[in-house]
Amino acid sequence: MAEKKHLLGLDGVPREEIEAILNTARSFREVLDRPIKRLPTLQGKTVVNLFFEPSTRTRISFELAEKRLSADIVNFSASTSSVKKGETLIDTVKNIQAMKIDMVVIRHSSPGAPHLLSRVLDANIINAGDGGHEHPTQALLDMMTIREKLGKLEGVTVALVGDISHSRVAMSNIHGLTTMGARVLVCGPSTLIPREIEKLGVEVYHNVDEVIPQADVLNILRLQLERQRKGLFPSLREYHNYFGITRERLEKATRPLLIMHPGPMNRGVEISSDVADSEHSVILEQVTNGVAVRMAVLYLLAGGQSEIN
Amino acid sequence: MAEKKHLLGLDGVPREEIEAILNTARSFREVLDRPIKRLPTLQGKTVVNLFFEPSTRTRISFELAEKRLSADIVNFSASTSSVKKGETLIDTVKNIQAMKIDMVVIRHSSPGAPHLLSRVLDANIINAGDGGHEHPTQALLDMMTIREKLGKLEGVTVALVGDISHSRVAMSNIHGLTTMGARVLVCGPSTLIPREIEKLGVEVYHNVDEVIPQADVLNILRLQLERQRKGLFPSLREYHNYFGITRERLEKATRPLLIMHPGPMNRGVEISSDVADSEHSVILEQVTNGVAVRMAVLYLLAGGQSEIN
Amino acid sequence: MAEKKHLLGLDGVPREEIEAILNTARSFREVLDRPIKRLPTLQGKTVVNLFFEPSTRTRISFELAEKRLSADIVNFSASTSSVKKGETLIDTVKNIQAMKIDMVVIRHSSPGAPHLLSRVLDANIINAGDGGHEHPTQALLDMMTIREKLGKLEGVTVALVGDISHSRVAMSNIHGLTTMGARVLVCGPSTLIPREIEKLGVEVYHNVDEVIPQADVLNILRLQLERQRKGLFPSLREYHNYFGITRERLEKATRPLLIMHPGPMNRGVEISSDVADSEHSVILEQVTNGVAVRMAVLYLLAGGQSEIN
Repeated sequence: MAEKKHLLGLDGVPREEIEAILNTARSFREVLDRPIKRLPTLQGKTVVNLFFEPSTRTRISFELAEKRLSADIVNFSASTSSVKKGETLIDTVKNIQAMKIDMVVIRHSSPGAPHLLSRVLDANIINAGDGGHEHPTQALLDMMTIREKLGKLEGVTVALVGDISHSRVAMSNIHGLTTMGARVLVCGPSTLIPREIEKLGVEVYHNVDEVIPQADVLNILRLQLERQRKGLFPSLREYHNYFGITRERLEKATRPLLIMHPGPMNRGVEISSDVADSEHSVILEQVTNGVAVRMAVLYLLAGGQSEIN
Repeated sequence: MAEKKHLLGLDGVPREEIEAILNTARSFREVLDRPIKRLPTLQGKTVVNLFFEPSTRTRISFELAEKRLSADIVNFSASTSSVKKGETLIDTVKNIQAMKIDMVVIRHSSPGAPHLLSRVLDANIINAGDGGHEHPTQALLDMMTIREKLGKLEGVTVALVGDISHSRVAMSNIHGLTTMGARVLVCGPSTLIPREIEKLGVEVYHNVDEVIPQADVLNILRLQLERQRKGLFPSLREYHNYFGITRERLEKATRPLLIMHPGPMNRGVEISSDVADSEHSVILEQVTNGVAVRMAVLYLLAGGQSEIN
Repeated sequence: MAEKKHLLGLDGVPREEIEAILNTARSFREVLDRPIKRLPTLQGKTVVNLFFEPSTRTRISFELAEKRLSADIVNFSASTSSVKKGETLIDTVKNIQAMKIDMVVIRHSSPGAPHLLSRVLDANIINAGDGGHEHPTQALLDMMTIREKLGKLEGVTVALVGDISHSRVAMSNIHGLTTMGARVLVCGPSTLIPREIEKLGVEVYHNVDEVIPQADVLNILRLQLERQRKGLFPSLREYHNYFGITRERLEKATRPLLIMHPGPMNRGVEISSDVADSEHSVILEQVTNGVAVRMAVLYLLAGGQSEIN
């Protein structure tokens, strides 16, 4: 990855690169448990966090990763930006780059916005979520969490449950997990699963009770409540009845299932509170691993070697 | 205080602990007058400022205290947060904690929010104002200012003037000042003083002209103008006539009174401009001491000893 | 400039001081091209960025300049401030100063707000734009860009094109450029040029095609679209036809013209896209020089000598 400049998505990223990131992230994960969590890696480097969509956890996670690598950080959010004044995205970003910044973390509602930037800028670009397209660091932290807990990704069965159609988290997980040799099941209402998704190497289910007995991991996607208005599912209660992951439903599992959720959770909708707080839930581990994965990506794109000392 | 984990309020905090904070704050106060105002105390520690209510001066004061102790800082405000997306407060905070943070400064409109957090989190929690309940660092800076100016707190007569019912500043001052042996008078319209407040060890007055001759210190509370709509006082003019602190009114003092206000001031309402700017006003000293007190609290909660070198 | 405390505007600033800033900025410009862009100059100093008007590029440019000089930074924007709670500007700023800050960068919609602050505060004040009055660091970066490209300012002909009446950028450029011995032309619709502006030492034109053959530099001002509602120009199309700088129009130039714009650009209104992106456009150089100029101003106001090592 030393010669790699950007992390735009996981589609097409080879297995060795994913492994290099996950191995590096594991080393950083240990740094996070030290009393002093700061390394000088990015000292004197400037990272701009360009968030054109509101975000709490992803922005804070990146910001902490950057601070712990001693980067200089500038935050930029669309609400206070020149974007409002009619400037094009490329002009906005070229301007920021002209201020001599080294790395850009971008979240944008348009699929492909990070790719566009990567073609016009010299800086390293990291995609922090582009529309319904990809959210690669989320999938990396999900994979890191599975690997830490189950010891491997190859041969593991991971079920993604919920709104697959609008989920960049699902898309990046599918690309990454299939590359790593995992078996991927997707499960949700037919209105929320894209046609021909089987071509990506996944199996499609519409009944979560068929999925649970086969899976090692359930990655439960957030139900974006605004989809209901568009008629994509009838009611929250009905969604919960058919797809909500509850303790009773999990009794059909043949082995303890790892419970994952990218957050923020709608407790009582896609996941019941007792499942979210159960001993098999690794939801907060995901969050911790998120910081480590983002430190790893920043470190490697900045030219670091996979071995950290 | 070395074994203490949180600063949730001043209710029940023993005299020695308050004294340790005030003594430590005095040392930091000297640091603030140096050309280089930065100490390495919190290097590599991460502090999150969780502000669920808008705030300027308290947030900036904490942020400066944190920066001057070299902490890594993440700011979080409710307007940009997952709270909007329906996540519970505990989930939001557990997520932030999972990113391996060390201290949380929280302002929230619900009384007891910091206490709730202290029960679920490992981090040190500092209450930066919780509804009408407590605002301990404000009371500490008020006490520091009185002690610096009058040389002591024991036996000093402090009058809190204004809206006592809705004031977390008043509540924390009452707890802290009575613990330190000061005499506390509260004065305001009967609609703005809680029943049975005498049980906290204070004397109640409704006529500010009776209070002035007895007091050493007037701590003039901000009148929150939105109370008027609720009919708690008739008009700004009438409030000013009965409770506004003016130069004429102060002529009834038997000795020079220390004039304090937690800010932001409504000049011409609870305080006249000439009083705010008079030679006995220590309103800006309060602000300076606020940074020192917050540095002291951060330092002591992080395990520092009361003696700073 | 060692004894100078503030940068409030360029009106009345002598030539030697402008030259000292531009020379210092050139040294910092080289720092920006280094892999490690951080200097310890302002370590332990606190800078407050007080932005009472929304701003992206100027705020980020100042913030980067401050970070690269290792200052401690506090950002303050009006939308989250006590200003909303009815506090006066002077009280807000005195409070912030009482927290022991060293420098204030202020943007405000009222002309003269920075001057007001400079009379009540001990801190160094830098004007980042005050209403239609001045924006001195923008003019300094414009002058730096011209000097870097053309080797001098003396005798150079600079045309400011567009809305002169409402432009603090134009005002500061006029003061600075005339001091430095440049010839300054202003060109725009008569509704957008102040009467008697000739008294500032500039020549007035209303036909941009007369200006182009004489100029070495075109500084194309942003058309603030809200002016149209006030009837100051008939339509965007008509404005573009009469004053928009296009490639065809530039064919009337007798030599290659330096194309400048303070941003954000309205492509297709005051400037066509091919001109903005042409080989003579130095618009992105302006942005880079902006960071260098702001580093220079911060450095010199903090007491630095003109020679940087």
